[in-house]
Amino acid sequence: MIKVQFLGTSGSVPTEKRGMPAVYLEFRGNRMLFDCGEGTQRQMRIAKIPFMKLDAIFISHLHADHCLGLGGLLQTMDLFGRNNQLKIFGPKGISDTLEQIITTGHFVLEGFDLELNEIKSRKLSTIYSTNGSLVKCARLDHNVPSLGFSFEEKERRPFDKQKALKLGVQEGPLFSRLQQGNQVRVGKRVVKPDDVLGEAVKGRKVTYIPDTRPCAAAIELAMGSDLLIHEATFAHDLQESAIEGRHTTAQEAAEVAKRAKVKQLYLNHISQRYTNAKVLEEEAKAIFPNTKVAEDFDKVEI
Amino acid sequence: MIKVQFLGTSGSVPTEKRGMPAVYLEFRGNRMLFDCGEGTQRQMRIAKIPFMKLDAIFISHLHADHCLGLGGLLQTMDLFGRNNQLKIFGPKGISDTLEQIITTGHFVLEGFDLELNEIKSRKLSTIYSTNGSLVKCARLDHNVPSLGFSFEEKERRPFDKQKALKLGVQEGPLFSRLQQGNQVRVGKRVVKPDDVLGEAVKGRKVTYIPDTRPCAAAIELAMGSDLLIHEATFAHDLQESAIEGRHTTAQEAAEVAKRAKVKQLYLNHISQRYTNAKVLEEEAKAIFPNTKVAEDFDKVEI
Repeated sequence: MIKVQFLGTSGSVPTEKRGMPAVYLEFRGNRMLFDCGEGTQRQMRIAKIPFMKLDAIFISHLHADHCLGLGGLLQTMDLFGRNNQLKIFGPKGISDTLEQIITTGHFVLEGFDLELNEIKSRKLSTIYSTNGSLVKCARLDHNVPSLGFSFEEKERRPFDKQKALKLGVQEGPLFSRLQQGNQVRVGKRVVKPDDVLGEAVKGRKVTYIPDTRPCAAAIELAMGSDLLIHEATFAHDLQESAIEGRHTTAQEAAEVAKRAKVKQLYLNHISQRYTNAKVLEEEAKAIFPNTKVAEDFDKVEI
Repeated sequence: MIKVQFLGTSGSVPTEKRGMPAVYLEFRGNRMLFDCGEGTQRQMRIAKIPFMKLDAIFISHLHADHCLGLGGLLQTMDLFGRNNQLKIFGPKGISDTLEQIITTGHFVLEGFDLELNEIKSRKLSTIYSTNGSLVKCARLDHNVPSLGFSFEEKERRPFDKQKALKLGVQEGPLFSRLQQGNQVRVGKRVVKPDDVLGEAVKGRKVTYIPDTRPCAAAIELAMGSDLLIHEATFAHDLQESAIEGRHTTAQEAAEVAKRAKVKQLYLNHISQRYTNAKVLEEEAKAIFPNTKVAEDFDKVEI
């Protein structure tokens, strides 16, 4: 199961109910954070997320509302004794920004290493692969370099346990070897993966599209997602503001969801002017019915 | 009336219930912030404090938990169109730290000026004076330069309105002139301030003592305060930790309050280990009964 939790659903400025951008994703013990706005460490504590066990942080772009929480989070990890490496991915410039952030306030990061990955490619590419899943990214269309990310479970073939037992394979390590695509020997008989693995099943997919104008890259990245998290800073009557700030309206986000044939859309990065964001939800639903406005601490399981 | 509101009462690390250090103070339309930890702008919004109207921010020291919120707060002020100058006071190094903070994340502060004041003196001195009040500061005893601040209403002489009317002074601008210490003319008679002003009355006083070991400078600064806000990171059974980190225990904070002859003590900067901080309150009350542990959004009016 892929667990997703929204930690901050506001854009630019926090409100009483919405923190700064951050989305948590967990899959098979692998823990990731997409964006890390001011206050994210506190949101993680409130949500009781084991933030010390984060494996990777993906920063979409270097506007302050998406990255200012890194300083506090990394310092707290250090204070609490983290010693395993943390991977950080972000656009060109992330290394300098991070250096600036983690040296503010007498701080010297001592306990653990950061593996920094500056993503310079403009094309859709795989940037991270682990434990049955991978993360792809693509360059979007904002007023500074901004990246979208998709988390994809690798294609998998269901394991026919009964058939394996029937062929004399004992439950345990041999099962794992077969699942991993290796043949195993049982007495004099060789059992091959194809004997016990079914047809390939497409993996589940979650896509995170932060600050951008609606664009082909977002649609390509989101194609076929089970969950699309798309920024929707404005309602469509403020499309001019959206164009000016290189943002997306709720209606436009719904159009992206429709064209990318996703199953479910969560509107995110909500402008502080919408104290009631139902207007955004209604507008998007007219085009893509399975839409919800993300609220802080909302959980989605896929 | 001096209005004080706690915006963050944790130390080092935020918890579910406690934000990072920040205390708001308002007096006669003058608005000040003491420390600005990560997330302060959001706490101000939750508390419905008019953060756009802040006049001055006092940063006690440059540990990240006390200053990381400046970036977000200043950027939001700029985004919302602030154009009047903001005064910032802090220890040596505040200018460089601030430069680092406000240039993180593609940000250029354009709409308003910062008046930066680096406080290098180690002695108790007045650093700010406005509208019937002044702020003093003193160097404390932490592992980096750390400043305590006291806000003091200037000594005032109560105005005897009835006597002024009896002497023929009309209510209005003439009252103000007399209150400000100027004589006025009523027909052929001269009315002097001494005719209508009573004995001098000591002004009210609030003192903020952040990260420090208990020290003479803290006692001198806090002397006679109506309200003392003192850090109490640990209970006294962890005095060794307090000494090692140059912090104060609740018992020690109470001793400072007693020696400084203050009226009321609020314990602040509470370690995240105290999910129930009553232990700190009880310990301090044994020495200084009028003690309370500060909670986020607590208000005190003096």
